[in-house]
Amino acid sequence: MFYKPDMMDAFADYDSAKYVIFGVPFDATSSFRPGSRWAPDAMRKASVNFETYNQHFDIDFEDLLIHDIGNLEPYSSVDETLEDLYHAVRPIVKDGKIPIMMGGEHSLTYPCVKACAEEAGEEIGFVVLDAHFDLREEYGGIRNNHACVSRHVRDDITDTYVTIGVRSGPKEEWVYAKENGIKYYTADDVRETGIKQVISEVKEYLGCKKIYLSLDMDAIDPAYAPGLGTPEPFGLTDIDVREVIRALAPISIGFDVMEIAPEYDNGISALLGTKLLREFIAAHAASEK
Amino acid sequence: MFYKPDMMDAFADYDSAKYVIFGVPFDATSSFRPGSRWAPDAMRKASVNFETYNQHFDIDFEDLLIHDIGNLEPYSSVDETLEDLYHAVRPIVKDGKIPIMMGGEHSLTYPCVKACAEEAGEEIGFVVLDAHFDLREEYGGIRNNHACVSRHVRDDITDTYVTIGVRSGPKEEWVYAKENGIKYYTADDVRETGIKQVISEVKEYLGCKKIYLSLDMDAIDPAYAPGLGTPEPFGLTDIDVREVIRALAPISIGFDVMEIAPEYDNGISALLGTKLLREFIAAHAASEK
Amino acid sequence: MFYKPDMMDAFADYDSAKYVIFGVPFDATSSFRPGSRWAPDAMRKASVNFETYNQHFDIDFEDLLIHDIGNLEPYSSVDETLEDLYHAVRPIVKDGKIPIMMGGEHSLTYPCVKACAEEAGEEIGFVVLDAHFDLREEYGGIRNNHACVSRHVRDDITDTYVTIGVRSGPKEEWVYAKENGIKYYTADDVRETGIKQVISEVKEYLGCKKIYLSLDMDAIDPAYAPGLGTPEPFGLTDIDVREVIRALAPISIGFDVMEIAPEYDNGISALLGTKLLREFIAAHAASEK
Amino acid sequence: MFYKPDMMDAFADYDSAKYVIFGVPFDATSSFRPGSRWAPDAMRKASVNFETYNQHFDIDFEDLLIHDIGNLEPYSSVDETLEDLYHAVRPIVKDGKIPIMMGGEHSLTYPCVKACAEEAGEEIGFVVLDAHFDLREEYGGIRNNHACVSRHVRDDITDTYVTIGVRSGPKEEWVYAKENGIKYYTADDVRETGIKQVISEVKEYLGCKKIYLSLDMDAIDPAYAPGLGTPEPFGLTDIDVREVIRALAPISIGFDVMEIAPEYDNGISALLGTKLLREFIAAHAASEK
Amino acid sequence: MFYKPDMMDAFADYDSAKYVIFGVPFDATSSFRPGSRWAPDAMRKASVNFETYNQHFDIDFEDLLIHDIGNLEPYSSVDETLEDLYHAVRPIVKDGKIPIMMGGEHSLTYPCVKACAEEAGEEIGFVVLDAHFDLREEYGGIRNNHACVSRHVRDDITDTYVTIGVRSGPKEEWVYAKENGIKYYTADDVRETGIKQVISEVKEYLGCKKIYLSLDMDAIDPAYAPGLGTPEPFGLTDIDVREVIRALAPISIGFDVMEIAPEYDNGISALLGTKLLREFIAAHAASEK
Amino acid sequence: MFYKPDMMDAFADYDSAKYVIFGVPFDATSSFRPGSRWAPDAMRKASVNFETYNQHFDIDFEDLLIHDIGNLEPYSSVDETLEDLYHAVRPIVKDGKIPIMMGGEHSLTYPCVKACAEEAGEEIGFVVLDAHFDLREEYGGIRNNHACVSRHVRDDITDTYVTIGVRSGPKEEWVYAKENGIKYYTADDVRETGIKQVISEVKEYLGCKKIYLSLDMDAIDPAYAPGLGTPEPFGLTDIDVREVIRALAPISIGFDVMEIAPEYDNGISALLGTKLLREFIAAHAASEK
Ligand SMILES: [Mn+2]
Ligand SMILES: [Mn+2]
Ligand SMILES: [Mn+2]
Ligand SMILES: [Mn+2]
Ligand SMILES: [Mn+2]
Ligand SMILES: [Mn+2]
Ligand SMILES: [Mn+2]
Ligand SMILES: [Mn+2]
Ligand SMILES: [Mn+2]
Ligand SMILES: [Mn+2]
Ligand SMILES: [Mn+2]
Ligand SMILES: [Mn+2]
Repeated sequence: MFYKPDMMDAFADYDSAKYVIFGVPFDATSSFRPGSRWAPDAMRKASVNFETYNQHFDIDFEDLLIHDIGNLEPYSSVDETLEDLYHAVRPIVKDGKIPIMMGGEHSLTYPCVKACAEEAGEEIGFVVLDAHFDLREEYGGIRNNHACVSRHVRDDITDTYVTIGVRSGPKEEWVYAKENGIKYYTADDVRETGIKQVISEVKEYLGCKKIYLSLDMDAIDPAYAPGLGTPEPFGLTDIDVREVIRALAPISIGFDVMEIAPEYDNGISALLGTKLLREFIAAHAASEK
Repeated sequence: MFYKPDMMDAFADYDSAKYVIFGVPFDATSSFRPGSRWAPDAMRKASVNFETYNQHFDIDFEDLLIHDIGNLEPYSSVDETLEDLYHAVRPIVKDGKIPIMMGGEHSLTYPCVKACAEEAGEEIGFVVLDAHFDLREEYGGIRNNHACVSRHVRDDITDTYVTIGVRSGPKEEWVYAKENGIKYYTADDVRETGIKQVISEVKEYLGCKKIYLSLDMDAIDPAYAPGLGTPEPFGLTDIDVREVIRALAPISIGFDVMEIAPEYDNGISALLGTKLLREFIAAHAASEK
Repeated sequence: MFYKPDMMDAFADYDSAKYVIFGVPFDATSSFRPGSRWAPDAMRKASVNFETYNQHFDIDFEDLLIHDIGNLEPYSSVDETLEDLYHAVRPIVKDGKIPIMMGGEHSLTYPCVKACAEEAGEEIGFVVLDAHFDLREEYGGIRNNHACVSRHVRDDITDTYVTIGVRSGPKEEWVYAKENGIKYYTADDVRETGIKQVISEVKEYLGCKKIYLSLDMDAIDPAYAPGLGTPEPFGLTDIDVREVIRALAPISIGFDVMEIAPEYDNGISALLGTKLLREFIAAHAASEK
Repeated sequence: MFYKPDMMDAFADYDSAKYVIFGVPFDATSSFRPGSRWAPDAMRKASVNFETYNQHFDIDFEDLLIHDIGNLEPYSSVDETLEDLYHAVRPIVKDGKIPIMMGGEHSLTYPCVKACAEEAGEEIGFVVLDAHFDLREEYGGIRNNHACVSRHVRDDITDTYVTIGVRSGPKEEWVYAKENGIKYYTADDVRETGIKQVISEVKEYLGCKKIYLSLDMDAIDPAYAPGLGTPEPFGLTDIDVREVIRALAPISIGFDVMEIAPEYDNGISALLGTKLLREFIAAHAASEK
Repeated sequence: MFYKPDMMDAFADYDSAKYVIFGVPFDATSSFRPGSRWAPDAMRKASVNFETYNQHFDIDFEDLLIHDIGNLEPYSSVDETLEDLYHAVRPIVKDGKIPIMMGGEHSLTYPCVKACAEEAGEEIGFVVLDAHFDLREEYGGIRNNHACVSRHVRDDITDTYVTIGVRSGPKEEWVYAKENGIKYYTADDVRETGIKQVISEVKEYLGCKKIYLSLDMDAIDPAYAPGLGTPEPFGLTDIDVREVIRALAPISIGFDVMEIAPEYDNGISALLGTKLLREFIAAHAASEK
Repeated sequence: MFYKPDMMDAFADYDSAKYVIFGVPFDATSSFRPGSRWAPDAMRKASVNFETYNQHFDIDFEDLLIHDIGNLEPYSSVDETLEDLYHAVRPIVKDGKIPIMMGGEHSLTYPCVKACAEEAGEEIGFVVLDAHFDLREEYGGIRNNHACVSRHVRDDITDTYVTIGVRSGPKEEWVYAKENGIKYYTADDVRETGIKQVISEVKEYLGCKKIYLSLDMDAIDPAYAPGLGTPEPFGLTDIDVREVIRALAPISIGFDVMEIAPEYDNGISALLGTKLLREFIAAHAASEK
């Protein structure tokens, strides 16, 4: 009769689970508005609002094997937290499960990509939805700053990197992206080209690689997601992002929803992030039917 | 010199009024976020923000006969509240007036439809803008739950039922809708088909019937209306909903705006709901000029 | 490495636990401001703020056997929820554990008292901290309304009833209290008499009975606890209430913290309620050392 | 069955009423945080939380003749608003009723005192609870600024002026108060002397005069009333203010509760102000039994 | 090492600056929700969120000469504030700089247009983005009300006036606009015609005139900017407004962002307003490269 | 005519100033609720609410030499931020000025004490108002965590350490405090002993030493200061803390107000912290008259 405040419909135990959801309540390098530490629990709370059934994919979450393993206990220090996170995610991947992280700040993506890439044993793609490049090498005196995550993944793990929704960065990042031939689509690009064309190009670029898909929620316009650490006007629509997730979930071996700062709205960012997390699972599960 | 905190421009007394506005501050079966009890007064407060003149219809509210009869005193129990509400609305309809309800939760719509249908003396249509089917027979141990309102209207009052904006429900509801040939347009349908085409099809389906028009505000995307009981991403635009109201108000004999939960934003949901309520009156009045 | 968002320091499993904490996210009969449904999770979140050690009692929670069993899944209907709650609490008591409830509305106290009283097998006392008498027989058309809980406990379960902090009620309740010789201390009484004298009188009145102790947080002044369903000015201080809990926990066989509505402040009511819950456990554990 | 969002228990019509409540949603000269324009409706909403019965005075509001005449329509300009307010209050007083204003900013007190004083036909006293002297002759280029109200009442209407709770002002005001022999009690004075002694001295000072009693809510400590235009730490307790109202209501011919800014808390300032307004009525009514 | 809470990237001193930013924390004639007094500081705070580089124009703010001169100390009275503001802006314009105001309410635009027009020495155009006509001659007893600003600019300073986004006004304003041949585009016009066509028509209408560009943020839909004094549904998109600013900044000799009321959201309106202010500077600077 | 959003009444330039105020918007090691980074600007905003005159000390801030030097640009890393802060404060002290810091988290106190102690050239005392001991050697993997500040000051800088208001800590801290003969007063001690007696004992303990006075705002009860990082019930009153500041300011050579998290209330914590900061200056200045 009693239930735990887990993500809704995460009825499976760890061993039988295909999808393993976890939260990392960590935001120590936040540059503007901290508070993404509250996102994992806010997303679990938001999940109560949603039905188990996804009509688009004709998928019922009651038929899926989802486990919510809880939150990682973070350190105050980002380096130790990332280290710990790596060691926590590595076995999940090794066990053949899809890790789904609820951030927390974007820096946490790095160890998850690393764990997935190692398990894959071949180059994977890294697809990021983000308003920012996150291509700095260091920021605020910290290498593992949230503003550097894509740089380090690209430098250390994989070249096959695409970012969608980008619209903010110092000149150096734009130059770096150009000079290094990085594949990116600004939010304006998406408005002009259409998300379907963008997705088609991204898929072609990725070839047959598996990917890690990372959603920094600030990719989305603040009208849809105002409760964020670094909200950036003129963003993607909620539908654009849903399309990307629907298209790329089937080739994803890891996923995350990052940077929601629930203190800065009355729940709609956590609701949207949770809905998109569930869309990821549905899209992935449908592709395996 | 003194004025009462009524809906703005509700200058008529009851007897002379054509449009009778009332609130029902009741939300006892709310499944996610309660608080629609505060909506009627929030909408009256919001109405202060708007001009008396509607330029689209060249209608000035100062020329209309609108009465704000106040709020219904609710019970804690939904059944007794609905019973009372029926007895409160029936005479309004009998007096040849258009009842306009500010919810409160969606369950309150049932007695209003019933009162209108009885007065009509012939089958009326029931058009609902909603993210949810509300087609359950019972929910949480309560038959008159907000999640069941369309089912009971359809079972008890009229088959001529259309719902627009739907995008959430357990599998059973989708199956039920299909099996019973229910006419529905998802929010995705509207995005693809265009609201004008949808309206045209709805009008054809309704034939020459009069209708009761019910706006569950969660039909609208949370970007426009975040302050709701059960916000559901990927919804209709504000403009879509305005188009439906403009098109259907002339054939409506009752209207309501439901499920606004004002504690969950800083006023914009109540502002939009109130604006749409006023658009209903203007559209209806313009059709009778 | 992962942890669940349980009440902090609830490290024991059910079988070994002495104290069993649970939440009941139910507020359907709320008469003024709903939202106590969010209190259990808000209290778990608040618990992160506190140290494991209680210096007053020299008790470390790490040495205690506490289990957080999760939340009860409520119905929309109060009667069915109370029925279910009774069946959920009865085995906890039967297993020799102390049930500690996080409300939810005050009506939920009834089945907990009942379960405790049945197990005790002899008359227990019922001590309530509350701004309100809750002595109505029925309210808003519902017998099991939060405004009636003390009446039903007194009528059905035990005469040995004291209430502290009361300062609001219809004339009938004051008359009823007088005529039935009910032992009550208003908040003004406490201010004049001093809480230590009040506690001493209460203890004498209770004799050697075991009690169920219920804390409706509105007993406390809104300065200390503004996030409540029915805040009532001129209340008890936080220290007064702590004194009562310290004094009566040792003779308590059940306890609850009710009526926190976390949407109506920024966390301090949940923090105070959680602190008092922990004070109860520490005081009880200290008395058994 | 329908009711208007009036102050609770204001069941009398104007003609039969003894107490006439009205709001003035005006805050145009606010120097720090505007928003007291929202207070009258917030107080009506808060009044729903309270019982009709006041146990201290054994007074039931259902037995009293109270009328809520609504809100005064304000101008943008303070001078015209005050002029209008005077003309609105004058007839209320002439009709032998007690005017009870819900501000709005403190400047609005002037025309109310004037209307009461004229009707009294003899010198009345002016007792103000306020953190501020409000003794400036002009502020921000406006004579009728909220920061000047006591000065103008004193200059134009009555010398018999006492202020309690004062703790903030430019040096000139403190000097002016000293040089003009103004009777004032700082919040520290009240803490040291005790409110009972202060009240006794005030009563002696007033002699047998009737008074106008004005409560600028910032007299009270922000712990009890954080939602204010100019909150000032180290204030009076809620109980202190209740004592003053209980003691002086019987000799009052007008009363107001001013400067609540409801956007700056979650309801507790409006709840306390409304409770104190009701305490005023109960105390006054009890004295006439 | 220390920095002042100025607008980010405003590194120039006054003498060398090309762009002079200032705030006017004044909102005394606000008709619905006051609080635009807090906007200048909220915009400075928001500016921390943005990068120095604008990729669309390839402009780095570190290369521009921007000065933040602080806030104007307002009076309580609108007339004196406007007088003062005129005398504060006139020298800025005389010194050949572009004044950029952060309101405060829209009435403040008048003295800025006047100062710019006088310096220009020839007729300038006045382009306003606004949900409202602001064409009243007087409102609430005050000539310089925010609801009158465009009327007075048109009457006193220039006939060359265009307004975009308008969708609210009393009938008299619509008639006045028609009868006086005022060039306006409603938000619906923009939706139907497309913003690029509108801009092209506006540019043709303006001929070779220099303009003052005024952005009343309520031109934008409340989904993008909910924190406003008078939010009006069915507005322009953020992208529409960005297009207008990009197109007209090069011919602007003054600019302002008005009517943000930061208490009514969690930062996104101030973020968007600040982003648009920066887009204005980038667009202007790019045109002079 | 323009002014900068500095702390009110900070009219002096750096060279002539006696009191130098600065903010450090840093909160990266926050263990519960981050957000003290917003406190310095919130305190500047709050300062607008207060008069220049302090009647208790007959001190007018217009007669004092106060400079607001702005905010320190923090790193993401605590170690580098503390290093930088030390180098920023050292010259202020060297110039014979009193540094007054607005935190930011409590860890920032360490470099300020160090800078002051070095300048003093003899042992200074360290008096802390805090709910927590902050005596850990390390926390969350970070030595310079806010929870360790007093330990490091005591270990590295001075043994003459007193803490008032303490009521929370792991058992190890209480034991450590006992074993090391640390002088502390719990909030309960203060309630029982009276703040005047406590102050007298503290002064005796300090002897003739100069001190650094640090106010972690969580020393104060959450009723007075709810907007904090780690609010702890059962705290000191606002008056208690004012008494300590009044008594110890005259012997202080540095002061700070730390840990306000303004997102967690509607301004009253920043108002109280700012008021206490101003009380410090007034008390210090009065002692030098
Ligand atoms: Mn990112
Ligand atoms: Mn980002
Ligand atoms: Mn519905
Ligand atoms: Mn719905
Ligand atoms: Mn109760
Ligand atoms: Mn109660
Ligand atoms: Mn005043
Ligand atoms: Mn005052
Ligand atoms: Mn305007
Ligand atoms: Mn406007
Ligand atoms: Mn500390
Ligand atoms: Mn602390």
